[in-house]
Amino acid sequence: MSVLHPDRLFASCPRQRDIARELYQQVAHLPIVSPHGHTDPRWFADNRAFANATELLLQPDHYLLRMLYSQGIGLDELGVRHGGSAAAKTDPEAVWQLFAGNYHLFRGTPTRLWMDHVFVEVFGIDELLTENNGPRIYAEINRQLSQPECLPRALFQRFNIEVIATTESPLDPLDAHRRLQADPWPGRVITAFRPDPVVDPEFEGFADNIAQLALASGESCDHFSGYLAALRERRTFFKSMGATATDHGHPSALTADLPESTCERLYQEALRGSLNADQAELFRGQMLLEMALMSLDDGLVMQLHPGVSRNHNSQLFREFGRDKGADIPLPGEFVRGLKPLLEKVGNEASFTLILFTLDETTYARELAPLAGHYPCLKLGPAWWFHDSPEGMLRYRQQVTETAGFYNTVGFNDDTRAFLSIPARHDVARRIDCRFLAQLVAEHRMTMPEASELAVDLAGNLARAAYKL
Amino acid sequence: MSVLHPDRLFASCPRQRDIARELYQQVAHLPIVSPHGHTDPRWFADNRAFANATELLLQPDHYLLRMLYSQGIGLDELGVRHGGSAAAKTDPEAVWQLFAGNYHLFRGTPTRLWMDHVFVEVFGIDELLTENNGPRIYAEINRQLSQPECLPRALFQRFNIEVIATTESPLDPLDAHRRLQADPWPGRVITAFRPDPVVDPEFEGFADNIAQLALASGESCDHFSGYLAALRERRTFFKSMGATATDHGHPSALTADLPESTCERLYQEALRGSLNADQAELFRGQMLLEMALMSLDDGLVMQLHPGVSRNHNSQLFREFGRDKGADIPLPGEFVRGLKPLLEKVGNEASFTLILFTLDETTYARELAPLAGHYPCLKLGPAWWFHDSPEGMLRYRQQVTETAGFYNTVGFNDDTRAFLSIPARHDVARRIDCRFLAQLVAEHRMTMPEASELAVDLAGNLARAAYKL
Amino acid sequence: MSVLHPDRLFASCPRQRDIARELYQQVAHLPIVSPHGHTDPRWFADNRAFANATELLLQPDHYLLRMLYSQGIGLDELGVRHGGSAAAKTDPEAVWQLFAGNYHLFRGTPTRLWMDHVFVEVFGIDELLTENNGPRIYAEINRQLSQPECLPRALFQRFNIEVIATTESPLDPLDAHRRLQADPWPGRVITAFRPDPVVDPEFEGFADNIAQLALASGESCDHFSGYLAALRERRTFFKSMGATATDHGHPSALTADLPESTCERLYQEALRGSLNADQAELFRGQMLLEMALMSLDDGLVMQLHPGVSRNHNSQLFREFGRDKGADIPLPGEFVRGLKPLLEKVGNEASFTLILFTLDETTYARELAPLAGHYPCLKLGPAWWFHDSPEGMLRYRQQVTETAGFYNTVGFNDDTRAFLSIPARHDVARRIDCRFLAQLVAEHRMTMPEASELAVDLAGNLARAAYKL
Repeated sequence: MSVLHPDRLFASCPRQRDIARELYQQVAHLPIVSPHGHTDPRWFADNRAFANATELLLQPDHYLLRMLYSQGIGLDELGVRHGGSAAAKTDPEAVWQLFAGNYHLFRGTPTRLWMDHVFVEVFGIDELLTENNGPRIYAEINRQLSQPECLPRALFQRFNIEVIATTESPLDPLDAHRRLQADPWPGRVITAFRPDPVVDPEFEGFADNIAQLALASGESCDHFSGYLAALRERRTFFKSMGATATDHGHPSALTADLPESTCERLYQEALRGSLNADQAELFRGQMLLEMALMSLDDGLVMQLHPGVSRNHNSQLFREFGRDKGADIPLPGEFVRGLKPLLEKVGNEASFTLILFTLDETTYARELAPLAGHYPCLKLGPAWWFHDSPEGMLRYRQQVTETAGFYNTVGFNDDTRAFLSIPARHDVARRIDCRFLAQLVAEHRMTMPEASELAVDLAGNLARAAYKL
Repeated sequence: MSVLHPDRLFASCPRQRDIARELYQQVAHLPIVSPHGHTDPRWFADNRAFANATELLLQPDHYLLRMLYSQGIGLDELGVRHGGSAAAKTDPEAVWQLFAGNYHLFRGTPTRLWMDHVFVEVFGIDELLTENNGPRIYAEINRQLSQPECLPRALFQRFNIEVIATTESPLDPLDAHRRLQADPWPGRVITAFRPDPVVDPEFEGFADNIAQLALASGESCDHFSGYLAALRERRTFFKSMGATATDHGHPSALTADLPESTCERLYQEALRGSLNADQAELFRGQMLLEMALMSLDDGLVMQLHPGVSRNHNSQLFREFGRDKGADIPLPGEFVRGLKPLLEKVGNEASFTLILFTLDETTYARELAPLAGHYPCLKLGPAWWFHDSPEGMLRYRQQVTETAGFYNTVGFNDDTRAFLSIPARHDVARRIDCRFLAQLVAEHRMTMPEASELAVDLAGNLARAAYKL
Repeated sequence: MSVLHPDRLFASCPRQRDIARELYQQVAHLPIVSPHGHTDPRWFADNRAFANATELLLQPDHYLLRMLYSQGIGLDELGVRHGGSAAAKTDPEAVWQLFAGNYHLFRGTPTRLWMDHVFVEVFGIDELLTENNGPRIYAEINRQLSQPECLPRALFQRFNIEVIATTESPLDPLDAHRRLQADPWPGRVITAFRPDPVVDPEFEGFADNIAQLALASGESCDHFSGYLAALRERRTFFKSMGATATDHGHPSALTADLPESTCERLYQEALRGSLNADQAELFRGQMLLEMALMSLDDGLVMQLHPGVSRNHNSQLFREFGRDKGADIPLPGEFVRGLKPLLEKVGNEASFTLILFTLDETTYARELAPLAGHYPCLKLGPAWWFHDSPEGMLRYRQQVTETAGFYNTVGFNDDTRAFLSIPARHDVARRIDCRFLAQLVAEHRMTMPEASELAVDLAGNLARAAYKL
């Protein structure tokens, strides 16, 4: 019996399972549309072999690191060093073994689903990882990684990826994307504009980032108007590199619509590093509005990922840097926070703002009512901690009755774990089919409607919302 | 196969479905008790034919308007004008066609369930509305609306309504209700006392409303004591027109118990329009307490519907007015907010305060614990955005274990969409039977107990709580 | 047919039910590990017969009292007097009858499940309690209570309790525990250290409590350092009486890391009773940090039960005292509140802080992400209002995908209702088996893994987390 059962994640009640299976067959093999994620474009530009299983699958995965760390396994034991680079001194096979011996910790988590899928579907290893088979599996994955069919471009094609978006800072020269544009390889890899380093006054090195922004854009950033011009220039450049969207990671969904003189004053203080926390938040809020106004002009779709307390564990941050599993969600608030932006552009049907949340209490109370009214708003899929079977079900259960399906935008894998992308889309498709199957089984929807929706959710909604 | 499957909304697991079906058969045909809603009493007093499908079913329904608007369809295209009156210039059939062509947007929403029910059960049209059959269905509904069996009183009787409560302002002379009282027609249509326009200092025209209140009541409202006397007089008048309940739509559940001198001062400033937002909220909170004290005297059951950001979309409000689908829920708070009121009257078993919420996080955390303790408190059903299959299930799942069934009050349709009333009660009865069926199937309750509860939830609890 | 169906609480879908049944058979008869609760150690030290059904089962049970009270039954009618002592004047049989006649109120609540279990499994009474059989059941329970097999120690052994922890104040001389230590009876009854009366400046009689603490510990408590020494001494004493854990009931999870001079100043004001509410909260927050630091030294596991508005009903509190069902949950906040403590000891794998909540919105948003990262954190089971089938399911559904199973600690019965302890553990085991069965039935976990987890959840996780 395979580790991956063909009916996995469907409800076990026969009637629902049968309907889900029928729906799933219509979407299982559709191409992957990945409109938001964090893969490295150099993988596809350079097409070099991945180093080994530990560096590829384990060390960059904050889901894995956080769980192992929570059970008392030090990040140094896992070979993690500051900035995420694996340490030369830690034997990657020993790290893999530590993971293999603790694979039971992931029971009931999405990590387990994704890893099993990678083992079976990418490497043909149809066994549950254990301490015993760990070394053998490690060797087998490494063996395959050196083969042509595991090179990034080969995987891209094996995964049936229609388009994938990476995420870059406005300061990024997009060299890999330039090379990809010049390359005859037909894979579609586009960038997305993530301006946090130059719109968040509390980002590390904000003033330096602005200096770089001025250089990159050729616009003086001495004043707020020049700064906006520089951002506009960068957006145009990103569009030329395929970007159809921007993305914004803010502590909250606060937006602001301030007089220009206030913007100028806040901007000058931001450059001097003298904003207090409230002023910094206000500045970020103003910048969300500015980004929305620019989107209205240049047509880039806007994404907002708010509500995370980043690097909650200071000691770990000092020793190991960002993205090591110490980011914790915060309560969300959208109704008051988005009001200034919505007052200005909320009724513009040509503008799209896609909202994400880590606070599930906002699904039914705030997000679905907002997206079920404002023409500019759409809801992104269940995100991060909620990108999981139960999380996705709660999302559909709490969002659909008020916002329907057509105010949502299909799935985002949002990952740097390239090999898990098919697994993640597969989980999303299975859960959507399961949800639709329940509606059909309970006579709340007809089968033809559910089929149409399953296909829409698997790709069409993402294509439309992200203008792909 | 009918659009309305006889087993719709029951769990599809055969054991649960069979039990639910058995329970449902005991309640399906019980009379409708509608203790809280927004139908127009003139319909029943005048008994005139409804104009057409668009004016009756579409234009006044903010659920419909909000979804269509969210997908970029302008309210003007839907023939909506300021105040909700349909525009003469917009062809109602064209509006209907716009709706028919977008009926897929409502997949998975309660609107879809209600509309399908209306088409089949009221008009005998057993087809899914589409762009193709839209004109034919429009014509057929209009044809029937002009027939005697579709006059308001005929529908009232076809719907098997035992009693229905409308909602009126204290400034309303209740002419329709007077006429109904004088009419030999046996239908029971009662009013309910909704004093928001005269207790909320931020209501449009508050000072004018108070002037009218003075006139209507014959009490001087120059001072707080006279103002209270005027309210008492109006309550007595509403009672004489059948009212058994009051209803209060406040931004929050804040209550207050202020010294009389403070009340007087706030009242004078309210009349002058000089209260700030916090003071206005405090005044409203005091008025909730005053209403509770009056209820203790006159026996009117009190309802509180808090927690909505009304008219969130300013542009839409300016152009089209209230109730166009731009109301968004706010986080709820009851534990601290209700304390002043509960300290004063919380232990009075002869007083009833029925609580509603749009913030589902308060079900298990605040409302069920409060209602499961205080003799005066009862919980209203899942409300507005949550008046839906998933919403009702979450309500029972999150409320029952702490508050039981007998601290809830059965169903409210809370609607101005008269034709959907049987549909809404049917959904509620089906979901309650489904919930009970699960308890029986999992051996947490016996079948005789579930039968008794199904009947209680379908009407008896409402009759008792609302003193009908 | 028995009132207790062998498949109760399992999903009714045959596939899931069969798997759940198979898992449950492996854990149904495992010994009970009760690491946190409120039984009276004198019961086991003295081993005297319980008085009667009303005093044993009804009057101390705030779940029962609150529901009956919510429906207008006065606590005086239930024979409750200030401090919880039953009144001599109220006939306990009449009180029992009042309960029996209102047993329907508990339909759908955990109280109903627990009581049915006690009737059937402890007393062999396999009938649903009604007004009719009430007197007979009352007499039968009383008859059995006077028999040897219903003495506390006999029940302890019948219940297959491996270890039970009671909860005591640092001011408690632990006489019963001393006697138990000297007694050859093999039952393991340990204490737990609950310092609320001496670390919460708002606790009734705080200054007097500190005076008693000084006496009991032999340490001068004139200054903060001596006060800490006194607490250390008491912890050592509690450890000698078997304690492996401390427990803390605070209004919130706020922690603080203040300079020593500030601690001293707050402490002096606390003794004088001159702290305002914010300062009192800050002092409590500092004391949570102090307790964590002491735990790092002495190895006692720390438990935090935050977020209750105690004695919400002032009138009831004045007339009847604490713990009469008028405690209401408050919104929870852990991400910011715990930060000072986590900054200091969060990365210490040798320290354990077990978190509880009454605010289910924090499960997926805050608690699972925190426990899924910090080595010191574990999650306690669904608590109090959520210690119920639906509550436990929501807990697993919302916690597992981010924190896994191994960052949770198995079940706590947390009760003073001794006879209900087997019922409560049985419900927890059934629900855990049901949850695991769903994962197996949906091919998200293998059966051998689920079996291992069922056993771990039924006892091993508690043994490990509480060092039992």
